[in-house]
Amino acid sequence: MSTPHHPQLDRDGRLQHLLTLEGLPREILTSILDNAAPFLAVAEREIKKVPLLRGKSIFNLFFENSTRTRTTFEIAAKRLSADIVNLNISTSSTAKGESLLDTIDNLCAMHADMFVVRHASSGAPFLIARHLANIGRNDIHIVNAGDGRHAHPTQGLLDMYTIRHYKGGFEHLRVAIVGDILHSRVARSQIAALTTLGVPEIRVIGPGTLLPHDCARLGVRVYHDIREGLRDVDVVMMLRLQNERMNGALLPTPQEFFKVWGLTAEKLALAKPDAIVMHPGPLNRGVEIDSAVADSPQAVILPQVTFGIAVRMAVMSMLAA
Amino acid sequence: MSTPHHPQLDRDGRLQHLLTLEGLPREILTSILDNAAPFLAVAEREIKKVPLLRGKSIFNLFFENSTRTRTTFEIAAKRLSADIVNLNISTSSTAKGESLLDTIDNLCAMHADMFVVRHASSGAPFLIARHLANIGRNDIHIVNAGDGRHAHPTQGLLDMYTIRHYKGGFEHLRVAIVGDILHSRVARSQIAALTTLGVPEIRVIGPGTLLPHDCARLGVRVYHDIREGLRDVDVVMMLRLQNERMNGALLPTPQEFFKVWGLTAEKLALAKPDAIVMHPGPLNRGVEIDSAVADSPQAVILPQVTFGIAVRMAVMSMLAA
Amino acid sequence: MSTPHHPQLDRDGRLQHLLTLEGLPREILTSILDNAAPFLAVAEREIKKVPLLRGKSIFNLFFENSTRTRTTFEIAAKRLSADIVNLNISTSSTAKGESLLDTIDNLCAMHADMFVVRHASSGAPFLIARHLANIGRNDIHIVNAGDGRHAHPTQGLLDMYTIRHYKGGFEHLRVAIVGDILHSRVARSQIAALTTLGVPEIRVIGPGTLLPHDCARLGVRVYHDIREGLRDVDVVMMLRLQNERMNGALLPTPQEFFKVWGLTAEKLALAKPDAIVMHPGPLNRGVEIDSAVADSPQAVILPQVTFGIAVRMAVMSMLAA
Repeated sequence: MSTPHHPQLDRDGRLQHLLTLEGLPREILTSILDNAAPFLAVAEREIKKVPLLRGKSIFNLFFENSTRTRTTFEIAAKRLSADIVNLNISTSSTAKGESLLDTIDNLCAMHADMFVVRHASSGAPFLIARHLANIGRNDIHIVNAGDGRHAHPTQGLLDMYTIRHYKGGFEHLRVAIVGDILHSRVARSQIAALTTLGVPEIRVIGPGTLLPHDCARLGVRVYHDIREGLRDVDVVMMLRLQNERMNGALLPTPQEFFKVWGLTAEKLALAKPDAIVMHPGPLNRGVEIDSAVADSPQAVILPQVTFGIAVRMAVMSMLAA
Repeated sequence: MSTPHHPQLDRDGRLQHLLTLEGLPREILTSILDNAAPFLAVAEREIKKVPLLRGKSIFNLFFENSTRTRTTFEIAAKRLSADIVNLNISTSSTAKGESLLDTIDNLCAMHADMFVVRHASSGAPFLIARHLANIGRNDIHIVNAGDGRHAHPTQGLLDMYTIRHYKGGFEHLRVAIVGDILHSRVARSQIAALTTLGVPEIRVIGPGTLLPHDCARLGVRVYHDIREGLRDVDVVMMLRLQNERMNGALLPTPQEFFKVWGLTAEKLALAKPDAIVMHPGPLNRGVEIDSAVADSPQAVILPQVTFGIAVRMAVMSMLAA
Repeated sequence: MSTPHHPQLDRDGRLQHLLTLEGLPREILTSILDNAAPFLAVAEREIKKVPLLRGKSIFNLFFENSTRTRTTFEIAAKRLSADIVNLNISTSSTAKGESLLDTIDNLCAMHADMFVVRHASSGAPFLIARHLANIGRNDIHIVNAGDGRHAHPTQGLLDMYTIRHYKGGFEHLRVAIVGDILHSRVARSQIAALTTLGVPEIRVIGPGTLLPHDCARLGVRVYHDIREGLRDVDVVMMLRLQNERMNGALLPTPQEFFKVWGLTAEKLALAKPDAIVMHPGPLNRGVEIDSAVADSPQAVILPQVTFGIAVRMAVMSMLAA
């Protein structure tokens, strides 16, 4: 059903799955953002519900625990009137030795309409998408809710919605991404989307041990000095520092990390005066971001959450309505 | 939005949150009980559902596990046609180091309408309510589903509903509360409600180690002899003995506790012949209550559960409809 | 309410509970299969939902964890428009010492309409059914979703649906059940249903240590040689090998088990050319079944899942609509 170049588009170029933002055409990216806007209005109504996905069966397949992300999809699905079933798979079939694709085949046999997939292994949603294509089930759609270090496309999309909302567009922006780029699926999705949408200058800022080796190929500028990197940017996208990285040799203590890489008001002052500060959450206050910044008027972290519900409603309805 | 004296009432004196029964005006208490009655009838219908909260987003925020209480709120919300999302927080964001209020801010940004909060720390729902007032979100309502040793207001309300149902009112009653008063949020809510509703004689019965020091201030009579305390009462409210209390030095073995403090038919015979026996559940049969009493016609423990659904529907609809 | 002979039928001979397929009259079995057919069509629609159980409260009571089975009932209930609440009881009230029947009494008091019960102890759903009869609550229905080694009636029913679908009936069939018959509630339900529906030849195939002693009484033929047992059969019903059996002295390694008892293409070739292969899932590929067989056109394992949703919708609607 899908071409080799765009495994997530169908033959007519429409969105079949949302697996990654890499390679997704600008028109599709833009149309998702455009579709999200009316869903923001739905959330403001007395009755926050539309019947677009009534009678559809959506499965939240979380092979990796994330109450927070699971909740955003659950709320989005319920506001679209879908039936949604939560499956925390780590503790069930996989433990009994059932393979990932056997689990998927089973849910397909239950007439699933959509899988929202979170998995610790990069590429798991692609594997499922290829399998669905192989068995001719193009009536079932996948949304990648985060796979390993690879992609987190709905996060990238809500970030783009946020930037467009506050900056009016992408064409003249200087955007900085700060933190552990190397291990971050969020950063990969952000870089892909910013590039496709025409942001002329993307900067990544972080310690050498936490930057990918292919930064040049990604078309981004690398900064090892946060002060230098933040100078005159329009948008600061902070990444969450994964606590588990702390245990290894990659990083010093949280206190030392904060001193060098944490976003403080003093560092932020180097950016443009109207620069916005974003963060995918949950916040490590005092580690990658100072509370004074997280709670300042420049922070748009909570609007990101609001936009996230609308963007997920847009994606789900474009796929399955 | 709220006055310092009544943090759970709005400027017009209407219920904004249900945090505690202490200080709640008698008219509000009575109106909740009055509102619960028609919801009892809903539960008797073929289709046990009303559209009062259709399209509302309710979050069951259980920072402390309680399948039983969570279920009562989930059923109540579904019968009001709300969308309800269960969040067992102990295993998610908090583990990732996110603060309670950051979690709340996130859910607010998802356009939540109501939080049902269970928390091991006394005062957590108050903290959230104050935060919502600070950020001007008086469109979001909180129901305290039990916080530490502090309050369990919906339990207190269903207990009042039960008493009014079987005794017709509160004005001439002698009510005894028996057991571990000191650690019991249920007892605190019961005492507050019984006092406000005008019960002339409230007795607390228990070992000295399990009674609060401020009994006098609470306006209750203290009995260290259960036989003496039960004499001629109209209502016996048993408390659940928390098993974890057994491990410490506060209490002897369950068998010894039962011998002295357990409610048996013989002890109950000292109360009025038409006295009712209540218990918040789950029962420790043979510890605080003998099976013969729990299953006797004087026990109204299961009607308490039935009334509890109706009372929760009343509270939720008064807050958010 | 119910006769001693048929604890799951009401006085008028209609299905009151679904506890076991043993002793269930042929007409009831057949009417469930007949009722399932239209629900298959519902699952093919744009809006996979019918309002038959709107406003009913169904509780998924899983005292033993099974995400897979829980999900099939949850989907079936939601497609019938019921309100369904999942209760994983092992981690809640039972841990607090509440008895099974106290838990049931509580849920009854919440105006439950149906309990879907999974329990590690054989007979638990019967115990609950007897209790409901004792307290006169014949408005509440039980579906056994698997109890100990005793019964798994909805699995047996979906298996019968599958056989009837592919073979057109039961009267001329030779059916083999292969594997750990002794510990299998699935096998017990299958044998009961096949017998009632008139299958003239039922074979059980397995090692002596995994066959029940009362095979003769069950009216089945015993084979200790899988090649002999599979000869000329129309239907091969594989059982799942419980991994936990491996640890004991009952069985050799999975590899050795596969060599002797695993279903391979070579062994399957001894059955009739149009024989179908069934499995209740989840599959242990390379243990009880070779992947080449599981994925072959003769395998009807995924249609079993599809039929399972329809059969559960039929049972639930017959009980509570």
